[in-house]
Amino acid sequence: MSTPSRAPIYLDHAASTGMLPDAIEAMTAVFAQPGNASSLHGSGRWSRRRLEEARESVAASVGARPSEVIFTGGGTEADNLALKGIYRARRRADARRRRVIVSAIEHHAILDPAAWLSDAEDAEVVIAPVDADGFVSPSWLQAELAEHAEQTAVISVMWANNEVGTIQPIHELAAIGAEFGVPVHSDAIQAVGHIPVDFGAAGLAAMSLAAHKFGGPQGVGALLLRRDVDCAPLLHGGGHERDVRSGTQDVAGAAGMAAALRWSTDHLEANIESVTALRDQLFATLLALPGTSANGPRDRHRLPGNVHVSFAGCEGDSLLMLLDANGIECSTGSACTAGVAQASHVLLAMGLDVPTARGSLRFSLAPTSTTADVDAVGEVIGQVVDRARAAGLVSSPSGKVS
Amino acid sequence: MSTPSRAPIYLDHAASTGMLPDAIEAMTAVFAQPGNASSLHGSGRWSRRRLEEARESVAASVGARPSEVIFTGGGTEADNLALKGIYRARRRADARRRRVIVSAIEHHAILDPAAWLSDAEDAEVVIAPVDADGFVSPSWLQAELAEHAEQTAVISVMWANNEVGTIQPIHELAAIGAEFGVPVHSDAIQAVGHIPVDFGAAGLAAMSLAAHKFGGPQGVGALLLRRDVDCAPLLHGGGHERDVRSGTQDVAGAAGMAAALRWSTDHLEANIESVTALRDQLFATLLALPGTSANGPRDRHRLPGNVHVSFAGCEGDSLLMLLDANGIECSTGSACTAGVAQASHVLLAMGLDVPTARGSLRFSLAPTSTTADVDAVGEVIGQVVDRARAAGLVSSPSGKVS
Repeated sequence: MSTPSRAPIYLDHAASTGMLPDAIEAMTAVFAQPGNASSLHGSGRWSRRRLEEARESVAASVGARPSEVIFTGGGTEADNLALKGIYRARRRADARRRRVIVSAIEHHAILDPAAWLSDAEDAEVVIAPVDADGFVSPSWLQAELAEHAEQTAVISVMWANNEVGTIQPIHELAAIGAEFGVPVHSDAIQAVGHIPVDFGAAGLAAMSLAAHKFGGPQGVGALLLRRDVDCAPLLHGGGHERDVRSGTQDVAGAAGMAAALRWSTDHLEANIESVTALRDQLFATLLALPGTSANGPRDRHRLPGNVHVSFAGCEGDSLLMLLDANGIECSTGSACTAGVAQASHVLLAMGLDVPTARGSLRFSLAPTSTTADVDAVGEVIGQVVDRARAAGLVSSPSGKVS
Repeated sequence: MSTPSRAPIYLDHAASTGMLPDAIEAMTAVFAQPGNASSLHGSGRWSRRRLEEARESVAASVGARPSEVIFTGGGTEADNLALKGIYRARRRADARRRRVIVSAIEHHAILDPAAWLSDAEDAEVVIAPVDADGFVSPSWLQAELAEHAEQTAVISVMWANNEVGTIQPIHELAAIGAEFGVPVHSDAIQAVGHIPVDFGAAGLAAMSLAAHKFGGPQGVGALLLRRDVDCAPLLHGGGHERDVRSGTQDVAGAAGMAAALRWSTDHLEANIESVTALRDQLFATLLALPGTSANGPRDRHRLPGNVHVSFAGCEGDSLLMLLDANGIECSTGSACTAGVAQASHVLLAMGLDVPTARGSLRFSLAPTSTTADVDAVGEVIGQVVDRARAAGLVSSPSGKVS
């Protein structure tokens, strides 16, 4: 179990996956030319064309219209913009609309803005519960809105969960929102580029995506925003992006995101097939060990690349570190809360007890993952789990990574 | 005056300048490796090291401590975060602090957040006037704070103006703020990388920078924030960047910004000398024409690369388009308001009348600019001005570029 000399086996693609060659090439082409997409001269118009081509390409990849694409500085910004912006606009139009409905398993980029709206702007946050597999119930939403639609500003339910890979019945949830005239936003950051996502067909009011989850650059994302949905800006200034998101546009970043998304959607079917096969192989490997259990659904309602397993009697952080020492890189959950010595809110919402929740690992696969990667996990996981079990619960979790 | 076949002469570097080779190289090195800087495994720690090296490098380049660097998705975000975040934190600590002091010549990324704070959060916006050269008066600020320090939440005065290049007495203004215990923020987006900027020595509470103004990538910026200054976050989520700016960090972008800034500060003295010489040469060329006048100071209190001239009887947009047709690219002011058919608020605040303000052009130079570039302007500017004057005020300005 000493540090291996080979390159690490990266099975944490849901945290951030490698840049696709198409994305690097698209960005490099933009880097070669100076220009601000708001400038009126030839170089400005060249930059504007690259930006609008990227906008059209992103839109085409996810079933949106180009005018619905608002480029942002990442997924967290898109989520914040959607939740706060739609809340503010809806509240301004009707002061009774104080309710913000979010599911219990949202990413912190939704949960924390919701909590902030409660603290700072008098919102009433309503948490949609989930079942043991992490699904939000359409009938729960139906009952909730039947009673409180007029007091509801916005609903946000993620398309697919970042920890356990549960794919929500998002079309059904969006239809219920539409029935009651309440806009539904979906954080589709883990879904886009990995499963079929059609913004228009889903009937959503808004949807977030982040380029670095599908082979584009970090620091680049988008909010898709239906034209009839009012959304107050978070960033004020030059009036870029339909006045919803001021700030000089990142033309290279937009081009990189567009190229990565195009590649991902062009190869979607084949990628889903190969990644799903590896996923099931890795599940079989891990679940062959005693004291292990899978979390989340095990059918087509699970992200192709997501493997999430609890190891009884282990600390997830110990498992992670021991695997890392063996050159295998995975996660205890969301990278954004990595290092926080507390059980995942997602797993607790699904009904897991705290020790089980804390003894869990997420492996996330990409189209570049191989059978050899899965075999490598199989070679060491038994020893690693034995050692982590021996360490028991006396391990000392590290402090928060800020 | 037909479209020339040579590459355009780009004299709009203040809108967005070309990427420096060092920046592209630094980004490409990061692009080659997957990793989320919050992940605990080896690839995550590699990303975290690249991010922290970038933070240390940016800090060293501008006289800050690494812990004072908050990476953002650009300059507009940094400005919004500073103004709104410090206002909210100061107001929360003492509800009487409603006043927000901003200069009349700030960028819209400050003016618009200030207006929003007035509309949405009960702020009282106080506009610091400027003199004919665009300078804010320290004695005005002294008098203002002598009367209203206890009611003042935050002060924001830009280090150097983006349109006319005026370099403010920022050390003096910061000292007055400090004397009265009011935090002073400076939008240093046009200054950093172009003139000596030392955050610590200036005594500022906060300072914004944007990478694409000094050869780094678009969509990347930073807020420098002194450790004792409270600033409420705009983006909530994973708690990145000292909990002030959530969102997966853009490691490549940070590395690119750091590399560009390092190159710019390493070559600062030589760059200032060469760019200043070209600036004065271009001023001489333009002012040799009848009916022209320079705007802003003409001494060491002007940005080295900024040339700003009014052409009597011309529309700036006509001049810009005619120059563009001759392969020379410049601006009528801020790219962020390019295409807006109204006179610059900066020039009006300096006392220009509307026709003079509208008949103005900004040329902005970089270390890559050459004497040949200036000569090329000289060859066509006479004809261009004659033609624009003939068109008079009947030209039809285009709609707003969003």
